Amino acid sequence: MYKHGGDLLADWENARHGMQSTDDGIYMPLQCATQWDAFCHVFYDGVTYNGHGPESVTSQGAVHNSIAQVADRVVGRGVLLDFPRFYGVDWLEPGDAIQDVDLEACAKAQGVEIGPGDIVLIRTGHMRRRRAEGQEHWGDYAAGPAPGLGVSSADYLLPREIAAVAGDTWGLESVPSESLPEAKFALHVIFLVNAGVLIGEIWDLEELAADCAADGVYEFFLSAQPLTVTGAVGSPLNPIAVK
Amino acid sequence: MYKHGGDLLADWENARHGMQSTDDGIYMPLQCATQWDAFCHVFYDGVTYNGHGPESVTSQGAVHNSIAQVADRVVGRGVLLDFPRFYGVDWLEPGDAIQDVDLEACAKAQGVEIGPGDIVLIRTGHMRRRRAEGQEHWGDYAAGPAPGLGVSSADYLLPREIAAVAGDTWGLESVPSESLPEAKFALHVIFLVNAGVLIGEIWDLEELAADCAADGVYEFFLSAQPLTVTGAVGSPLNPIAVK
Amino acid sequence: MYKHGGDLLADWENARHGMQSTDDGIYMPLQCATQWDAFCHVFYDGVTYNGHGPESVTSQGAVHNSIAQVADRVVGRGVLLDFPRFYGVDWLEPGDAIQDVDLEACAKAQGVEIGPGDIVLIRTGHMRRRRAEGQEHWGDYAAGPAPGLGVSSADYLLPREIAAVAGDTWGLESVPSESLPEAKFALHVIFLVNAGVLIGEIWDLEELAADCAADGVYEFFLSAQPLTVTGAVGSPLNPIAVK
Amino acid sequence: MYKHGGDLLADWENARHGMQSTDDGIYMPLQCATQWDAFCHVFYDGVTYNGHGPESVTSQGAVHNSIAQVADRVVGRGVLLDFPRFYGVDWLEPGDAIQDVDLEACAKAQGVEIGPGDIVLIRTGHMRRRRAEGQEHWGDYAAGPAPGLGVSSADYLLPREIAAVAGDTWGLESVPSESLPEAKFALHVIFLVNAGVLIGEIWDLEELAADCAADGVYEFFLSAQPLTVTGAVGSPLNPIAVK
Repeated sequence: MYKHGGDLLADWENARHGMQSTDDGIYMPLQCATQWDAFCHVFYDGVTYNGHGPESVTSQGAVHNSIAQVADRVVGRGVLLDFPRFYGVDWLEPGDAIQDVDLEACAKAQGVEIGPGDIVLIRTGHMRRRRAEGQEHWGDYAAGPAPGLGVSSADYLLPREIAAVAGDTWGLESVPSESLPEAKFALHVIFLVNAGVLIGEIWDLEELAADCAADGVYEFFLSAQPLTVTGAVGSPLNPIAVK
Repeated sequence: MYKHGGDLLADWENARHGMQSTDDGIYMPLQCATQWDAFCHVFYDGVTYNGHGPESVTSQGAVHNSIAQVADRVVGRGVLLDFPRFYGVDWLEPGDAIQDVDLEACAKAQGVEIGPGDIVLIRTGHMRRRRAEGQEHWGDYAAGPAPGLGVSSADYLLPREIAAVAGDTWGLESVPSESLPEAKFALHVIFLVNAGVLIGEIWDLEELAADCAADGVYEFFLSAQPLTVTGAVGSPLNPIAVK
Repeated sequence: MYKHGGDLLADWENARHGMQSTDDGIYMPLQCATQWDAFCHVFYDGVTYNGHGPESVTSQGAVHNSIAQVADRVVGRGVLLDFPRFYGVDWLEPGDAIQDVDLEACAKAQGVEIGPGDIVLIRTGHMRRRRAEGQEHWGDYAAGPAPGLGVSSADYLLPREIAAVAGDTWGLESVPSESLPEAKFALHVIFLVNAGVLIGEIWDLEELAADCAADGVYEFFLSAQPLTVTGAVGSPLNPIAVK
Repeated sequence: MYKHGGDLLADWENARHGMQSTDDGIYMPLQCATQWDAFCHVFYDGVTYNGHGPESVTSQGAVHNSIAQVADRVVGRGVLLDFPRFYGVDWLEPGDAIQDVDLEACAKAQGVEIGPGDIVLIRTGHMRRRRAEGQEHWGDYAAGPAPGLGVSSADYLLPREIAAVAGDTWGLESVPSESLPEAKFALHVIFLVNAGVLIGEIWDLEELAADCAADGVYEFFLSAQPLTVTGAVGSPLNPIAVK
């Protein structure tokens, strides 16, 4: 806070009359909360999406594949796949990997189809679990074990030409990874580097999931635009679904 | 940038193989770019919207009237009023004040009506002017003279029960103010403190205005949600119009 | 880092020739490492040193008792009191409280006297312990239990008119406090608010203590000036002893 | 400010009793005020002091030649050379270049010798001028024209094996440079890259100069240690002279 009500109280004889203002600022990692990873967040074998090399991301930011370059591209159709409700459980377990067949079965059960340009939201219930289990269990929410997508999920999602996929865990993928050690976070490579599909992390899907369960409609208009931070590797956002 | 392509180059023998990631962070005033003012941004005679006193905004942020409290309220119908096109000029001049009759005339000419819950966008052309006149003229874009709304604009907007009003200048209101010195930024008091109407500043309306001029449609769906920064007095945003 | 060697590598064809520069910045709490507490760091019954009220410290910083106001006052004679060596132990235990009689006995054993304007350094060995016990024990170094000064230490130090007192723990005082719950951190009140004696925290005294033990000389010239951050409540510093 | 007196006022019924504390933080470029340039601040033909390449300074900071590596090396003998007083003027003019013969003549006139390990302070009076001419003239203090050292100053200073040289301008060197365009800031290369001599900038030498003029003694003990910011390219400091 640069200036707040306490400052008014410290100068109350003047501040009690007429107009006064307050101001604030923030210091934050751009991937510290509900966020998008830009394509340039990940390199594989020295290149990011469309073959741009390391010189494309410097202290000046990214000249290719920054989040600002998709600033107006992620407002559109969203689809929620709610795995805990599909499986009849409160939440999935860390390490649980959602595969292609799981995606297909869940979408079918929910009566929803996934198509070109969609933003697909994957609910594992892991955020609900951390809330339910209390403050002391949040410690490993970031960077710890979590349920999430398995590698074959790409076989289902990519042919459908989705624009983005987001989830309610810190890394979208299942952790520990089902993959070989040298291929952990394989989906980050597949989605960001190979396919040009945005990855969203730490999304709170609880309220949306309850609404979808109530009316049985798992598709909606989704306002999920990032901030236009020039050259940024990621961006916080406040996604809003409209039905 | 916490880690970028240059860091990969500095460790190229290792970094050229497999997956690498980049990360960044930001330090910014929360009202430094395209932004919303929360209701608690302004106090008048010691109170903000709904009569909350100075103790409601401290170093911990605002407990009432923070931007986070309207996090899902500003996604809806938007209406653009494009005054330079209405007047047949490139841009309005600093100090030009758009009054109630001007709003009414412009809306009528554009064939658009303003109603409950609308987010009204006011284009003065001032941002276009700063771009056209070049780098050295941006110096007073923030805090300098500007065209904008006059006080009587509230007489037109408030009975229509709008949710928010935003413009392409730093302060929405005309500067220097038409008002008495002791009442400058009167609209900040009227909209934020008295009426509970959000104020948006530094919005780039050029592309939207060109689109509206092309198809003659000045209403649209507007995704204009702020970030959910707890207790914040304002928030940057990336507003997106959908037609 | 705003610009670094990796940025040169990303533009190597140009950067390999002639002069290039690097730059960096920092975001830090002003009391996050080896530091001084300014007098205005603590209020008691609504006042800080010399009776200044809460309106003397606002979002603009402190107008009285800021660390900048003593910017040139803490370069002078320093005295180390090394309690682990005095007691023949590796380190004191959390909760151990160094009292007036302990200070007197240790000073006598070390053959050193404390006088007006001195900067007194209190070694408990707690920093050495945290290093010896490894990374996983640093978690409670800040804000956790620690050895330190007991309340009666003021009876010894204040009549000697010292300028400042610093130690190798996060809070200088013994934690948990020997005091009544309503009087914890009593020495912060006594030194900062009542006496106008600076408090230094998180000082690494290991190298200095080894040197004093080697030559038996526990007094030295001490360069311990804070940064001149206008209005600051505290400041990081890099204290250097010269013998 | 994280917490200040205004916060106490906002909770006065509780805060008026017992102990309360205040806290603050800072965001700053490490070279934004009175400061040292570390050796790694400058590369020439791809190397910094002792031949370390660009991979020695990354987003993790410098592994060689950081300011932290000289954290205890710049407390020692200081010498002031006061050119405005030597020339009988208020201040030198931008572009004025102090050469080897000037250094020799000024030192001789002041009756002081420069020797191994010294920290040499060069007063041009430029900071005094900016203060005298008022607020609106500070705009080009950073990065603008300034008096300062000429290239041949190195011929005088380096054989004397000084440790560091600092001045009262933003860049120590005369600007515009007397050098060829491709060799501007030549002294940064000579001192930092070739010789391993620290460069200090934006030092306020006014009070010290007045004192030296009063007693005719231009040498002193100088506490000029940087902060120990790991891997930093530069550091703010608060230099204190003791006579």
